[in-house]
Amino acid sequence: MEKFKEIKFNIGELKGISAKNIEEHLKLYSGYVKNINLIFEKLGELMADSEKNAYVIGELHRRIGFEFNGMRNHEYYFKSLEGGAKQLPVNSQFRKAIEKQASTLEAAMVGFKTLAMTRGVGWAILYFDKQSQQLIPAWIDEQHVGQLNGLSYVLGIDMWEHAYVYDYPTSEKKIYIEAFFDNLNWEVIEQNFLGAQ
Amino acid sequence: MEKFKEIKFNIGELKGISAKNIEEHLKLYSGYVKNINLIFEKLGELMADSEKNAYVIGELHRRIGFEFNGMRNHEYYFKSLEGGAKQLPVNSQFRKAIEKQASTLEAAMVGFKTLAMTRGVGWAILYFDKQSQQLIPAWIDEQHVGQLNGLSYVLGIDMWEHAYVYDYPTSEKKIYIEAFFDNLNWEVIEQNFLGAQ
Amino acid sequence: MEKFKEIKFNIGELKGISAKNIEEHLKLYSGYVKNINLIFEKLGELMADSEKNAYVIGELHRRIGFEFNGMRNHEYYFKSLEGGAKQLPVNSQFRKAIEKQASTLEAAMVGFKTLAMTRGVGWAILYFDKQSQQLIPAWIDEQHVGQLNGLSYVLGIDMWEHAYVYDYPTSEKKIYIEAFFDNLNWEVIEQNFLGAQ
Amino acid sequence: MEKFKEIKFNIGELKGISAKNIEEHLKLYSGYVKNINLIFEKLGELMADSEKNAYVIGELHRRIGFEFNGMRNHEYYFKSLEGGAKQLPVNSQFRKAIEKQASTLEAAMVGFKTLAMTRGVGWAILYFDKQSQQLIPAWIDEQHVGQLNGLSYVLGIDMWEHAYVYDYPTSEKKIYIEAFFDNLNWEVIEQNFLGAQ
Repeated sequence: MEKFKEIKFNIGELKGISAKNIEEHLKLYSGYVKNINLIFEKLGELMADSEKNAYVIGELHRRIGFEFNGMRNHEYYFKSLEGGAKQLPVNSQFRKAIEKQASTLEAAMVGFKTLAMTRGVGWAILYFDKQSQQLIPAWIDEQHVGQLNGLSYVLGIDMWEHAYVYDYPTSEKKIYIEAFFDNLNWEVIEQNFLGAQ
Repeated sequence: MEKFKEIKFNIGELKGISAKNIEEHLKLYSGYVKNINLIFEKLGELMADSEKNAYVIGELHRRIGFEFNGMRNHEYYFKSLEGGAKQLPVNSQFRKAIEKQASTLEAAMVGFKTLAMTRGVGWAILYFDKQSQQLIPAWIDEQHVGQLNGLSYVLGIDMWEHAYVYDYPTSEKKIYIEAFFDNLNWEVIEQNFLGAQ
Repeated sequence: MEKFKEIKFNIGELKGISAKNIEEHLKLYSGYVKNINLIFEKLGELMADSEKNAYVIGELHRRIGFEFNGMRNHEYYFKSLEGGAKQLPVNSQFRKAIEKQASTLEAAMVGFKTLAMTRGVGWAILYFDKQSQQLIPAWIDEQHVGQLNGLSYVLGIDMWEHAYVYDYPTSEKKIYIEAFFDNLNWEVIEQNFLGAQ
Repeated sequence: MEKFKEIKFNIGELKGISAKNIEEHLKLYSGYVKNINLIFEKLGELMADSEKNAYVIGELHRRIGFEFNGMRNHEYYFKSLEGGAKQLPVNSQFRKAIEKQASTLEAAMVGFKTLAMTRGVGWAILYFDKQSQQLIPAWIDEQHVGQLNGLSYVLGIDMWEHAYVYDYPTSEKKIYIEAFFDNLNWEVIEQNFLGAQ
């Protein structure tokens, strides 16, 4: 297994999300990269005697989902904040797809923000399912509980407390959701969608 | 949202996995299709008053991962048992990829079977990660805990008790793992791998 | 930490639950006892260098809930099937308590059976909360997801597939629920309730 | 079901944990009380047609563990911070019990702090098991994943980000653990232990 590498993101000044919050958030991303690599390193050692180490091997395999998704979720998230707020391109394919499922993109985003307000910590994610040719939303508990098998991440928002609590208390997370959308680079979302076809 | 449709699988006689076990297993698959559709139907109704119904909406969103993956995991599984046991094609790309990571395909499968013996109920899945160009294994608890964000399912085995218990008791699940591989259509695995590029 | 010991249960012939099913079920119970002891043994070894082993220590700590509850849940379950079907004593305190919350015990049991039909594998448990002086029901996913902090187990039913699938397929688990109640020793439930005061 | 009531805690000035952090933390506790009551209220309505509402009833039952434990965990936590830092009484029974399992209380607390550093959000809890007459530690994911069936909470620390992030970033949670112990009223821990006998 080749080691996963930490990506360096180029995130400018954001409206309503402080540089301090982004800085602390990036440290946590770094921890996920470190730990997914650590799991595979430990597994490599332990597999040398898979009989004796069976229990620990099992628990490390079980934890791959947390660390890997902790890495990859954050990469999608930070990438969608690079480049500053940008609108969807004219003739956006993503807009066309979503308007087959909702009256307007704006109406769909009202629904997505309701999803983001789900109790607990985790992610609101909108995936594209190539097989049924539909956008499918899901709430992900923590980093890894409920990710959809084989689907492509198009749009997501981190709803762990660390994503916003340097700027807003937990009881005001609704304001953070608005701030996230104020800074979203929709061109990245369009690219995610095109890559999912 | 368009309704998901139940797929009809054409599974012939298997060695070591009874027709009775497959028959009961297919009933459960059918339940997942029914219930993922039910979730989206209920959500449609409840979103008419998203303020009042916020709590229940949250719990249904949280459960999409269980029902959707319960459907999709089983579709990959049954598809890999259609057509009878078949070998990987000569010049298999999947074999080439796996032999970059393990000494041989056989050695890699020893590791995969260890993964499948993880305590509890769930799935052992081998995904392909297009980004790092690697095969990545993970244990999935139940249907949905630990699925890897955005990766493609290549090879998997259902380790819920219902997958084998009509033929072998839980304490002998190791025999079922061997039986699964005896019946595996590796051409489907090759196709999964090619589709993941 | 002293090792937990496997309890030997004296379960007679049951109606609608086969000796074969009980026999296989007891093997799994035995596995939980073995593995909770294994976790604490491994932790003892690893804590000698808690810095270096931090990651694995964390994952073993996280898994205590699964193995410990897998042991203890089953002990409550098998104990409630010892001694054969017996009714609640005249002047049952449990009955009095439940009739403060439901019209009749029978009505409460209709609700409890609905709880037992929750999708997935786990346990339906009715606890007593000394603090609020109430019986509180909860669905427990697997062995450990949702156990109520500090409350006492009064009545429970194992809804993992291994609890019944040698007798009934998953799609007929409703029949098993009835069979369980046909064999229940309510005197044990009364004792559980009295011990919870 | 009688409604659970929010407890008013009398927490004085703490060292290293700000009034602001406690204030925000108490708001979240209040949310758990509100939502466990909401679940039972909704269940009461939905049980009027338990056939039609079976799916939603199941998901609400599944969520009792999160909300109930979210309430009760916090009550133990805040109670242990009332009254200011106090030492264990002379002849502490808790100390005697822990010194049967570890060389000293201090050594045991080193282990407990390692437990508290487990990755993710949740609780480190030390329970007393009346049956085996031992103190048993466990990591609880979120509020509810891994609580030990029937055991009594003796000592615990909230390791969700909201417990400390107004004072320390996530990457420095180790400092918060020390701060918690600097303010701990060990007389409450002694009482918890005595109540567990």
